[in-house]
Amino acid sequence: MLSRTSNSLLYCEREKVLPCGKDKLKNQYLQVRGVYNAIQPTPAFRPEIQTAPQRLSNKGLFMSRLYNFGAGPAALPEAVLKKAQAELLNWHDTGMSILEIGHRTPEFMQQVAEKTEQDLRALLHIPENYRVLFLAGGGQSQFGMVPLNLLSLNKHLGADYIDTGVWSRKAITEAQRYGKINIAASSAASHYTDIPSPSAWTCNNDAAYLHYTSNETIGGLAFPFIPETEVPLVADMTSSLLSEPLDVSRFGLIYAGAQKNISAAGLTIVIIRDDLLGHALPFTPTLWNYQTHDKAKSLFNTPPVFAWYLAGLVFDWIKEQGGLEEIKKINSKKAELIYHIIDESEGFYKNPIQVPTRSKMNIPFFLPSPELEKTFVSEAFQHNLANLRGHKLSGGIRASLYNAVTLEATQALANFMKTFAKKYA
Amino acid sequence: MLSRTSNSLLYCEREKVLPCGKDKLKNQYLQVRGVYNAIQPTPAFRPEIQTAPQRLSNKGLFMSRLYNFGAGPAALPEAVLKKAQAELLNWHDTGMSILEIGHRTPEFMQQVAEKTEQDLRALLHIPENYRVLFLAGGGQSQFGMVPLNLLSLNKHLGADYIDTGVWSRKAITEAQRYGKINIAASSAASHYTDIPSPSAWTCNNDAAYLHYTSNETIGGLAFPFIPETEVPLVADMTSSLLSEPLDVSRFGLIYAGAQKNISAAGLTIVIIRDDLLGHALPFTPTLWNYQTHDKAKSLFNTPPVFAWYLAGLVFDWIKEQGGLEEIKKINSKKAELIYHIIDESEGFYKNPIQVPTRSKMNIPFFLPSPELEKTFVSEAFQHNLANLRGHKLSGGIRASLYNAVTLEATQALANFMKTFAKKYA
Repeated sequence: MLSRTSNSLLYCEREKVLPCGKDKLKNQYLQVRGVYNAIQPTPAFRPEIQTAPQRLSNKGLFMSRLYNFGAGPAALPEAVLKKAQAELLNWHDTGMSILEIGHRTPEFMQQVAEKTEQDLRALLHIPENYRVLFLAGGGQSQFGMVPLNLLSLNKHLGADYIDTGVWSRKAITEAQRYGKINIAASSAASHYTDIPSPSAWTCNNDAAYLHYTSNETIGGLAFPFIPETEVPLVADMTSSLLSEPLDVSRFGLIYAGAQKNISAAGLTIVIIRDDLLGHALPFTPTLWNYQTHDKAKSLFNTPPVFAWYLAGLVFDWIKEQGGLEEIKKINSKKAELIYHIIDESEGFYKNPIQVPTRSKMNIPFFLPSPELEKTFVSEAFQHNLANLRGHKLSGGIRASLYNAVTLEATQALANFMKTFAKKYA
Repeated sequence: MLSRTSNSLLYCEREKVLPCGKDKLKNQYLQVRGVYNAIQPTPAFRPEIQTAPQRLSNKGLFMSRLYNFGAGPAALPEAVLKKAQAELLNWHDTGMSILEIGHRTPEFMQQVAEKTEQDLRALLHIPENYRVLFLAGGGQSQFGMVPLNLLSLNKHLGADYIDTGVWSRKAITEAQRYGKINIAASSAASHYTDIPSPSAWTCNNDAAYLHYTSNETIGGLAFPFIPETEVPLVADMTSSLLSEPLDVSRFGLIYAGAQKNISAAGLTIVIIRDDLLGHALPFTPTLWNYQTHDKAKSLFNTPPVFAWYLAGLVFDWIKEQGGLEEIKKINSKKAELIYHIIDESEGFYKNPIQVPTRSKMNIPFFLPSPELEKTFVSEAFQHNLANLRGHKLSGGIRASLYNAVTLEATQALANFMKTFAKKYA
């Protein structure tokens, strides 16, 4: 298990893996759980999804679509799905499906590639000196691409990372294969329930970059601030990008796998300040060099056409909702609904995260026993509330409240939680 | 321009790029064209796709869907599109879209991941000692992954490549960044209209592997045989896999981007003999190490869920067609229809490829002038025949006849070609 002081994490040697394997991480999480429940959790469980007739809405009516609280791939706006469905055989009157359309046709280049970039720039007010890349693969590809492209900015290939949980740790482990990674701060001491004050961070003024994970999807720990730094700031925003407005100018590079708030799986968006292009280490694969894709407007090779197109539909949908200010308001309301139930449950539901660093996107919580959690997941499913099981590393329950999870769905979950607590407390 | 003897291509030094840039390749193709037409082609052109009401079927009836002869992303079977459309909001009665479903749910793992692998194994009779990987990204990722994973099999990081056109050359260029690449044979001498006899190949008996491109999508040059070799045989089968039966046991590794005969863009299939796993060079990104994905059954990180699912629907469709033997018969018939028109056109249509090495998947041909080719593309479009423009490197016309292009569509193209030749010859 990681020690609280965790000095061994600092200045790990190149090529060495982080002294913390999957088992240790699991223990770390179990300890968090133990703080609250003093119970050893049972092995991971997953109820078989039942067939539709067994599912009933809260009013006793059958629903063809569930409320999906999955952590990703996750719920998409129903309006987006319906639009994709309607035009699946003949996209924009081209006589072809978007699944069949060439990525170098003027239709794709104008109506998808250019339009999505413009829409994303407008939604996030991306400054002109930033490039937007639409890349194949998931967010984890960036755990390698970021160091391969940016480590050379420090002559010792050194970079700073903040360790706040599973995902930042995965990024650290891959970066350590290529450079000298300094863990400038770690949430280990708080068992990943808090983010250390920046005044205590041990950053290097000449680091190639400072990397952090804005929202830990598994732990439910989120940064309530953007770190101040002299070096390029790199953020994994896979589960938070487009959930609220963002000052992009504070960053050197932002990346996000699409399967949370952007699109279906298979696409990753990278927003990079233009001076950070062109620094890839010599052995970087051509397809993993940001410059390759920048020069070709993300069309160097065949891109994930459908996921890119779907991102465009989601951007349209966000605009229709009123943009990111409105999205943020709804997301805050949703998170408040669930945290309120947790906090008012007199200890029946427990969220271990310190209040200021609670995630609005992923809310993990525990019940008095793993058995009761199993019952919770099972009964919730009967009320059309799906994918509430916590990650296998943490156990417990997790409700992911991405943009596409409606206020109605969240209210249904809140109601269910209230009733369930009354029944079993 | 490449010399016919092209000795300079042999034993290119590590880190040097192939002495043949894009412009030289273009010249090479223009020379091919010149052999037949003695005309300098005009700059690349692409007619704007017209709106639907301007399109008429051969019988004068409006068709909502075009006959799509695009080279990829390409036509998909209409039955597959309709199935995907029908279940897009509620997949397999899960109450969720396949676009929203978690890749670690039992539904996805059983009904997509496991089923597609089993189906592909059955279709291709893949031996047990081969692993099947479903990876994110396009076929070009393999230009880097193959050398990164296999070059260490030779102590000098040496591998043999066969140069038959644009795509094999791209593979060579990337491999040269990592090892000592021997061009064991090149079609340059024939201006990429023929494949040198294997008796003339200069292979190394201890090469890490021998790489070839089974079908050159741009040039329309295809291997009518599987090369004999003592070393692991690696094939880029992006535009030929699943177009006919294949003896997988002859290969060390086969890869194919999905956007031709398999699925939509964003997925690449790798079939690898199990003894070739575990040899990645030390700086290979974790996500580019085949072993990473093999150990995790292609679920190490979030995969391209939708394209994987769609591949499953295509496999089902191939089974419904009677399997790869039947598919091959239809594909042969389709190719014969078009080559017959070309060969009987008294030189109006010209395909420069030597007959035994003609591709059944991609048929490039030239008309007497670029102006007439422009007219051809434009008039063909009015007959619902779309995406016939040749690649920008080659000019001319190209008809791609992947599995999903029906005999009916091919017959419509053949009829149009005949009428067009009568009108303009």
